[in-house]
Amino acid sequence: MRMYDIIKKKRDGNVLTEEEIELFLKGYINGEIPDYQAAALLMAIYFKGMTSKETADLTMHMANSGEMIDLTLIPGVKVDKHSTGGVGDKTTLIISPIVASVGVKVAKMSGRGLGHTGGTIDKLESIPGFRTNIEREKFFEIVKNVGVSVIGQSGNMDPADKKLYALRDVTATVDSIPLIASSIMSKKIAAGADCILLDVKTGSGAFMKTVPEAVNLAKTMVKIGEHVGKKTLAMVTNMDVPLGRAIGNSLEVVEACETLKGRGPKDLETLCLELSANMMYLAGIGTISECKLMAKKAIEDGSALEKLSDMVTAQGGDAGVLQDYSGFKQAKLKYELKTDKTGYIESINTENCGRVAMILGAGRETKESSIDFSAGILLNKKVGERIKCGEVLATLYSDDIEKCRLAENLLLNAVKVSANEPKHTQLIYARVSADGVEEY
Amino acid sequence: MRMYDIIKKKRDGNVLTEEEIELFLKGYINGEIPDYQAAALLMAIYFKGMTSKETADLTMHMANSGEMIDLTLIPGVKVDKHSTGGVGDKTTLIISPIVASVGVKVAKMSGRGLGHTGGTIDKLESIPGFRTNIEREKFFEIVKNVGVSVIGQSGNMDPADKKLYALRDVTATVDSIPLIASSIMSKKIAAGADCILLDVKTGSGAFMKTVPEAVNLAKTMVKIGEHVGKKTLAMVTNMDVPLGRAIGNSLEVVEACETLKGRGPKDLETLCLELSANMMYLAGIGTISECKLMAKKAIEDGSALEKLSDMVTAQGGDAGVLQDYSGFKQAKLKYELKTDKTGYIESINTENCGRVAMILGAGRETKESSIDFSAGILLNKKVGERIKCGEVLATLYSDDIEKCRLAENLLLNAVKVSANEPKHTQLIYARVSADGVEEY
Repeated sequence: MRMYDIIKKKRDGNVLTEEEIELFLKGYINGEIPDYQAAALLMAIYFKGMTSKETADLTMHMANSGEMIDLTLIPGVKVDKHSTGGVGDKTTLIISPIVASVGVKVAKMSGRGLGHTGGTIDKLESIPGFRTNIEREKFFEIVKNVGVSVIGQSGNMDPADKKLYALRDVTATVDSIPLIASSIMSKKIAAGADCILLDVKTGSGAFMKTVPEAVNLAKTMVKIGEHVGKKTLAMVTNMDVPLGRAIGNSLEVVEACETLKGRGPKDLETLCLELSANMMYLAGIGTISECKLMAKKAIEDGSALEKLSDMVTAQGGDAGVLQDYSGFKQAKLKYELKTDKTGYIESINTENCGRVAMILGAGRETKESSIDFSAGILLNKKVGERIKCGEVLATLYSDDIEKCRLAENLLLNAVKVSANEPKHTQLIYARVSADGVEEY
Repeated sequence: MRMYDIIKKKRDGNVLTEEEIELFLKGYINGEIPDYQAAALLMAIYFKGMTSKETADLTMHMANSGEMIDLTLIPGVKVDKHSTGGVGDKTTLIISPIVASVGVKVAKMSGRGLGHTGGTIDKLESIPGFRTNIEREKFFEIVKNVGVSVIGQSGNMDPADKKLYALRDVTATVDSIPLIASSIMSKKIAAGADCILLDVKTGSGAFMKTVPEAVNLAKTMVKIGEHVGKKTLAMVTNMDVPLGRAIGNSLEVVEACETLKGRGPKDLETLCLELSANMMYLAGIGTISECKLMAKKAIEDGSALEKLSDMVTAQGGDAGVLQDYSGFKQAKLKYELKTDKTGYIESINTENCGRVAMILGAGRETKESSIDFSAGILLNKKVGERIKCGEVLATLYSDDIEKCRLAENLLLNAVKVSANEPKHTQLIYARVSADGVEEY
């Protein structure tokens, strides 16, 4: 079987065997199979799809292409969580300590932000002294002793995904469900947890623009988990509006702290309790309703905040800033954006909010761009809330007045005000497990 | 517009503008656009097709990528002919002189054989002294004075096709109608004739295995011709059986001479008269039936053979061999293949006949292989004819007894004998013109 025959077989709508997938992937990684043959195969996969078995085989061979983290030396069930990416998505900072505070181990590797979406690693690094580049041994030790550690993705993990993603990115083959699913799941599998909770975002700020697409991706990923023996659950959640009110690194850490203190925005708190409960459920420590109660209690009694504090200390950070926010780098400018309209906030274009944050300095346009941890947006008004002419819609945080001026119009245009109260939008659309899709 | 957007646009089933096609093609030829992006676009074209306009735009930009032959200095209408390739297809050797003998100019560039199909240039080179590598000026002069010249394709013509074809060949994107059509037509357009007759082969020995596929390709090519202002006609003809009885270079030249002397195999003569008549019709010298009569007369009065003789002389060849065939290199072995069956020849696997000829030395496995001009097959029996146990089915010509033995079984297995007389098969299926498809 040559690569030519593998391309033709997929092009003709046939199912590839595990041997064929392995031959392609190994050959591609070691340079024997050229980019152009890989590109042709990816486009054929775009059109013809892959079965659950093919997708799982591809995922496992991708995961096995690099370092596989072995968490078996850490006692107990290890749970991982992944979000498909959104704007203002600081859930990891809230959920991980909640879950760890009830005894479920969280050993998490996160990514950096790119384009309009932020990354957990950047957010954590806005905490003075916090290290995300930690040796394996130390990482395992923190997980074992503190119960939770979040570090950056290892450079040796899943090289297949890195090479394939770079090719997909320039050949218009990114938006293929089996290719997205295998890219996400291969990294999660290589990261070694026993259970995986997926937060599949959908809406204007997400990669999956519609609920059916998101459910489809969720199902595909859950099936991969099943195939490879990892307990996997997916929540399909709303990214039509930014999550919470803060967008930008230290602003989001502060909001996460507020949420762990029971003073967070309602949508963020609700979603975090739901996700935490499902992570605990995956770890097998109770029913969903029991887990939800435990999660609430972890906020109420301060144990979750304490867990975050312990993690920050363990990773070299100044945990004092979680109480006294003035310890964060402060933006030179707080630029208030006032509206000239009166009515209800009907919608906020989430992707454009992400772009505004990026312009202000909170995100990266290219992998090489540097980040201003203090930059970002605080939304004063969210969808469904009333606003009056002259009232503050949002505050922009930046060191540069030019950037604020550039961002101003884009943000004002991203917000739609209408005379009528908009319909309430759903926060969670569905829960996808091996048993099927449960709609909310 | 970047190449990424062009790939995505085609992937999503949209129509590319001429500017986009030009941007892709120019960028690909000059190396700015990498193979992997071109491969992704080709696979998207495979799945989403191209409109007549897109295909014509692609064809013209391919033709314009290299040398464009200018035949306008040669007075009169210049007609070209192209066959999509088959086994035992020596029609060019017969048609070109027939058409030239009635005053229609034939300036033809032909290819070499590869794999199981033969090439006109190789066949002509089996004539001692015949030169197919002739300077432009001399070629024009022969066309002007003799009325016909057949030479090899210029290395500077249509580099876009060469580069694209090489990529299609390794990415399973060869069998796409718009890509096949543009590859053929771009070379014909660059070759400069006013009118183009296409012989689209279909059946076991052809690239297009079914009549509907072949008709589809024919229609696509005729439409390209229309778009770019070249009078174009296509005949869809049978390649389920080898054409005539001879397969192999000098064997086919001899059979062509026999046909021009009125002693050729019926199928070959019939097809050549039909193709010749259509070429003349394209040149506007009469109705189809008038042209058919002229073609017949050109054989009967020997003027076509004389024309071939003149062309051979003009291109440095020994025209004496057209009368005394012993002047051709003779194979050392004539290996008679006898059958152990009695009945009717039901079918002959044409592709396998081509392979047998290649094994005997008549064709090339790779572009670098050398050819034995005297090697080949003479079929004693054709489809529909009776054969008795012990009778000679075919004669193999070769210098090497090992090759004959290797070929023997493959050829015997390629021929199916049955007790009942098989149904008569059609020689010509359809004629495709700008006015539509005329079935035969």
